[in-house]
Formats: sequence, structure tokens, C-alpha cells
Amino acid sequence: MGTLPNKVTPRTNPMFQALLLASGSEIRAQMLRAAGLEVTTENPRIDEDLVKAALLQENASPRDIADALAESKARKVSARHPDQLVLGCDQVLEFNGQVFSKPTTLEDASAQLHQLRNNRHRLLSAAVLYEGAEPVWRHVGQARLMMRDFSDDYLDDYLSRNWPDVASSVGGYKLESEGIRLFSRIDGDHFTILGLPLLELLNHLALKGAIPA
Amino acid sequence: MGTLPNKVTPRTNPMFQALLLASGSEIRAQMLRAAGLEVTTENPRIDEDLVKAALLQENASPRDIADALAESKARKVSARHPDQLVLGCDQVLEFNGQVFSKPTTLEDASAQLHQLRNNRHRLLSAAVLYEGAEPVWRHVGQARLMMRDFSDDYLDDYLSRNWPDVASSVGGYKLESEGIRLFSRIDGDHFTILGLPLLELLNHLALKGAIPA
Repeated sequence: MGTLPNKVTPRTNPMFQALLLASGSEIRAQMLRAAGLEVTTENPRIDEDLVKAALLQENASPRDIADALAESKARKVSARHPDQLVLGCDQVLEFNGQVFSKPTTLEDASAQLHQLRNNRHRLLSAAVLYEGAEPVWRHVGQARLMMRDFSDDYLDDYLSRNWPDVASSVGGYKLESEGIRLFSRIDGDHFTILGLPLLELLNHLALKGAIPA
Repeated sequence: MGTLPNKVTPRTNPMFQALLLASGSEIRAQMLRAAGLEVTTENPRIDEDLVKAALLQENASPRDIADALAESKARKVSARHPDQLVLGCDQVLEFNGQVFSKPTTLEDASAQLHQLRNNRHRLLSAAVLYEGAEPVWRHVGQARLMMRDFSDDYLDDYLSRNWPDVASSVGGYKLESEGIRLFSRIDGDHFTILGLPLLELLNHLALKGAIPA
């Protein structure tokens, strides 16, 4: 009689946590928000090239490089916010055992796409969760992609239409726009291809009770 | 010397054809345009429920139903525009041999999602190309999806937040927004899940010379 029902709605339940995304890139924040999560972001400002170079010198695998970069970002931001659930992410492109970086010039992008043409490559998307400055969960998702044998003319036209938009992608392509036309086959989920193994992360957050299940 | 180079750019080459999409839905036109294709649309206005009911009575498989619906749409529009390349598409959800339709009420959507919960289902996305009022290419893409064992409370909240937005989807969910949280596993490409086997279509158009390759 006049008391509130003994039920809290998921939206206001204090047991559900906002996620702090250790990243300056917008695409992952958008993916998480599209899935209905509350997300804040903080750029960890780590020197990715330096970390990557050190790992390559130790003969780390592409998968380990993606995981280590994701962890570095989460660790750095978690140290500043130990009370929060912090997510670090990274994506690596592997071709013939070699790790590709984001192209910095149109010529770079063209050279990379020439190498990938008519060949298979892998995208590895790592996610690491930190809480209390400790890692509490990690996952590396994998997608396998096969490029078709497109013509030099098509590639030139593609880059003239899509550069510098594709400079933010490790392969120099975006599947969500004209980049799809470079491929003959894609095995792997779209979220991993976009740079975050979202399904596995959401399932973990639901199991953990961090989001409504 | 003052003559134009003997080269036509893909954008203005008259050998490349615009695609006439036999559909009133916006999502497929968006997917094709995102891939850089020129697309016009015309709604075939066929009675999908009638066609589906007739096919079900003949014990047609879910795959054949998707293909036949895609073909009906392409055929009808191609009869009016025999000079154009016409694309018909359809998507069917199959669960335990049963074909689901787009939910018309929130209660429908809730009943469907209760059935799909903690179970596997398939999405079948058919595409048929017509030219000169004849079918010239067809493909049915398939994706397999597994829903997690979400709570009744979560489902109620999900639908209160996402109805009627999800009414345009055969399953009552949209993976590109909160619908992703209903799943534990997804096998199949994103385009097939969105309702069009885009990769296979683009590869066919490139091989056929209808788009730059």
C-alpha cells in the first residue's frame, strides 16, 4: 500500500555498470552503444607502433600482438579508474604471417591491397576487460577473408573514391561500404571484422551480471 | 594531340548497368548503394502471404519459398522493364522446419522470440536476377543463429524498447542494434543476415561485366 514495487528496472539498477572504453576510435563506441550499452571513453594514448615493434622482435604471433595491444590500453586506463569496468580492444591484419598496419598514404594502401589481392588474410580482433586494475576476461575473435582478383584499374578507382576514408582501417578497406567489392569470400562475424568481438563480450557481460540478462 | 584518352571511366561507361531493385524496402537499396552501385527501385506489390501459403501447401522447403518469393518479385518488375537488370530478394526465417513471418504485433514478436530462445534457427536470403523477362542468376545465402537463454524480464524490456522498430524483421530482432544481445552464436555473413547475399551478387555482377571488376 503506497510502497514501491520490489523491482528495479535494468536501466536504473545500480548493479549494472557503464563500460569505460579505453579507446579514442568512434566505431567501437558506436557498436557498443548500438547494442544498448552505456559507454564512456578515454583515450589511453599508448604508442601502438612501439608496442607492436617490441612484440614483433620477440616473434610474438599476430594473435598475441592483438591481445597485448588490447591489454595495454585497458591496463593504462584501468590504473586511473580502478573502480570501473574498462575495455581495451585492438585489431590486427595478418597476411602470410606478416602483420599489416593502417596505411598512412594512398600509395601504402595501394601496395597493401595489391598484396592482398587474390589471396586470403585474417583479421584478429582482441578485447580485454580490466577491473580493479586486473584483467578479468579476454577474447580474440578471428575472421578469414578472401580477396578477388580485381583489376589494377578497379583498385585505382576504388582508392580514388575511398581514400582517405579507408585510412582508419588496417586493411585499407571498409566492408560496410565499397570495400565489400574487393572480396570473393568472408568467413567470420561482422563485429569481429569491424574490430570488436561484440557477441562474446556481451555474453560475458550478461553472465557476469554487468548487463541485464 | 587534343584527342581524349582512349579510356572510359567505370562511372560513365555505358556498358555498366544500373540495377532495378524489385522491392519497396529501404534496407536492401541502402546495402547496394553503400557498395557503390547505382540502384533504382520499384515495388512489385505482390501478395507475399498468398504466395507463401500456396508454397507451404505444396510442402515447399523454406529455401524454395525464399527463392520463389524473390523470383516472383523480379519477374513482375522485369515484365514491365525487360531492358533492365532486375533484382528480386526475399528472406525467410526457418525454425524446426517451420517458416516464421514478420511479427505484426508486440505479442506476436514476443511469442516468436520465446520460441527461438535457447534454440538455433536459420535465415535464408534469396536473390534472383532477371533480364529480358528471364531469370539469369539466382542464389540463396544461409546464416545459422543461436539465441541465448535470456530471461522473460529481459525480453519484455527488449521489446518495450525496440517495438515497433523490429516489426520489419522476420525474427523480431535487428542484429545491428540491441538484437545482438539475444544471441550466443552467429554463423553466416552479415549481408545474408540483413536480407541480401550481397557478396555473391557483387561477384556475379563483376564476372558478368555489369559493374567494374
